[in-house]
Amino acid sequence: MEYRKIKDHHQDKDVDPIGDDDIENLRGKALSGIPATNLATLGGSFSERSKWKLKSVVTLALTLLTSSQAILIVWSKRAGKYEYSVTTANFSVEALKCALSLAALVRIWRNEGVTDDNRLSTTLDEVSVYPIPAALYLVKNLLQYYIFAYVDAPGYQILKNLNIISTGVLYRIILKKKLSEIQWAAFILLCAGCTTAQLNSSSDRVLQTPFQGWVMAIVMALLSGFAGVYTEAIIKKRPSRNINVQNFWLYVFGMCFNAIAILIQDFDAVMNKGFFYGYSLITTLMILNHALSGIAVSMVMKYADNIVKVYSTSVAMLLTAVVSVFLFGFHLSLPFFLGSTVVSVSVYLHSVGKLQR
Amino acid sequence: MEYRKIKDHHQDKDVDPIGDDDIENLRGKALSGIPATNLATLGGSFSERSKWKLKSVVTLALTLLTSSQAILIVWSKRAGKYEYSVTTANFSVEALKCALSLAALVRIWRNEGVTDDNRLSTTLDEVSVYPIPAALYLVKNLLQYYIFAYVDAPGYQILKNLNIISTGVLYRIILKKKLSEIQWAAFILLCAGCTTAQLNSSSDRVLQTPFQGWVMAIVMALLSGFAGVYTEAIIKKRPSRNINVQNFWLYVFGMCFNAIAILIQDFDAVMNKGFFYGYSLITTLMILNHALSGIAVSMVMKYADNIVKVYSTSVAMLLTAVVSVFLFGFHLSLPFFLGSTVVSVSVYLHSVGKLQR
Repeated sequence: MEYRKIKDHHQDKDVDPIGDDDIENLRGKALSGIPATNLATLGGSFSERSKWKLKSVVTLALTLLTSSQAILIVWSKRAGKYEYSVTTANFSVEALKCALSLAALVRIWRNEGVTDDNRLSTTLDEVSVYPIPAALYLVKNLLQYYIFAYVDAPGYQILKNLNIISTGVLYRIILKKKLSEIQWAAFILLCAGCTTAQLNSSSDRVLQTPFQGWVMAIVMALLSGFAGVYTEAIIKKRPSRNINVQNFWLYVFGMCFNAIAILIQDFDAVMNKGFFYGYSLITTLMILNHALSGIAVSMVMKYADNIVKVYSTSVAMLLTAVVSVFLFGFHLSLPFFLGSTVVSVSVYLHSVGKLQR
Repeated sequence: MEYRKIKDHHQDKDVDPIGDDDIENLRGKALSGIPATNLATLGGSFSERSKWKLKSVVTLALTLLTSSQAILIVWSKRAGKYEYSVTTANFSVEALKCALSLAALVRIWRNEGVTDDNRLSTTLDEVSVYPIPAALYLVKNLLQYYIFAYVDAPGYQILKNLNIISTGVLYRIILKKKLSEIQWAAFILLCAGCTTAQLNSSSDRVLQTPFQGWVMAIVMALLSGFAGVYTEAIIKKRPSRNINVQNFWLYVFGMCFNAIAILIQDFDAVMNKGFFYGYSLITTLMILNHALSGIAVSMVMKYADNIVKVYSTSVAMLLTAVVSVFLFGFHLSLPFFLGSTVVSVSVYLHSVGKLQR
């Protein structure tokens, strides 16, 4: 349950700082000579092929990191419960991402000097929008405690698939980017397929969710979708601005909001037992994984978009289940096969729909 | 169970005679002045719009008749078991369809006289292929008794969705008609969606089906798909030939094969208790419904194709469930909603895919 919360937190928290060392590792040898900053600052000047390659690499990285995230959750559940504080873990993730983006910037400054695009100092006009995604997630996380009065945990997992639809709708409305009709059909299928893959014998109870539960689930989906789309808007508003600077500011506010959460919820426990009480190897691995997948989400937002992010994390969910068969001897269910088929067709249709736009 | 058998028999038996009175009723007022024969014999000469109208009407009729078929099955289950013989009921359906097509022909002969296209006499060359669909169904129905050694009845219902895929594949191979890539995607979705809509807590057992069960299910799907596609090929080979003549010959052989089935399985019972022993109002209604939906299938084969037939019967399945909510107070499950969503998107994609061909 505790790990689940970090996961939820993470999956939504969409934007992260990044060290260029990490990007180089993710990007593979082909691009390893070019510092990450160049890729970011060159903007429109790079060839379509390099752009496509970068987009593919960050998407693949996000998919792999998200699925290993879920595998760590299963592993941690098997290993038993850990008594660490969730709020300090969340804060650590934000702090780690902040530190990585700062480290990346220091290296860039050394190699290329400080320019308008990579300097850390900013204007009030630029920075004023950065706390908004973090604030939206705070509201959403608060609502999360109330929704469990109406829906059980497996039901909530099912309802979270509404995020897919809300992201698509808000992406269209806020970013004013068009999806083709086939891509809309694909998006509906993605939502239906993911839900189908998660079906189990108790899933039907979700239909008995009272009206307030549905309203809260929809509001939460809208908040989460809005935060994702808004983050993309912030990052893309200044295409030449270095991504590490953008992430640094986003995560400074992430740290602030998590510090407030620690003060409200876990202040006494942290004072008495210490900040890192109950941290184990697996806790550390999960924090590291969350920081790195945050980095990948951030790159996807910069070089691709929210739609790619949704597809990436959905495919990751299926990948996790398949890997769990080998690692933990899980059995794949018939709904899983059917849902995976629908998701696969959806991915295919999304790419076909793009060509025909 | 007995009604289920008629239903299975019927759904596959794909081709039926038709009286033009019935067609006129189905076709509505717009076309009621034109005898059915004209529509059939004029062939290529009618306008695209009339063709489209005819295609829509027969498809709608098939959908409505198929869904009322399933509702009769539910009704009959609620009303308790009837001790009638399934083989005599099947024979009666064939005989009724034969009689209706003959009645239609008599009326046509009176109005228009006997022509090359509507005369009943035929050549060995024309008639020699007509027993093949009936023979294929006989083999399939015999196999049906053996597959239950490996799969239970709900599992068999799930596996029957393989018919959708086999029909698509054989339609492509035998009739050499192309489906666009999007239409193929839509067809896979139709299969996945129909299966999802039928999921219940025991569905997962179907994955434990032994290898022989899978082989038999695939062979049966291929037999059923082949019979459907072959029937379409027979009917479409002579486009100007009157559909009632074509149906008459198809169903003469249907009667023959069912007569053989009575001799083998129920000869003693029929001799001792009589042919119509145990027939009730609902038995009669079901036989009438099967005959009429057979007529509709036949019209769909003549004026549309197997793909339209598969979509039509799949949508009918969903329609039945919705109507059952009102008639019998059924509850719709979450898998049903998800499956219906996928099937709806599939229908949409099929029509979009056609335009882009």
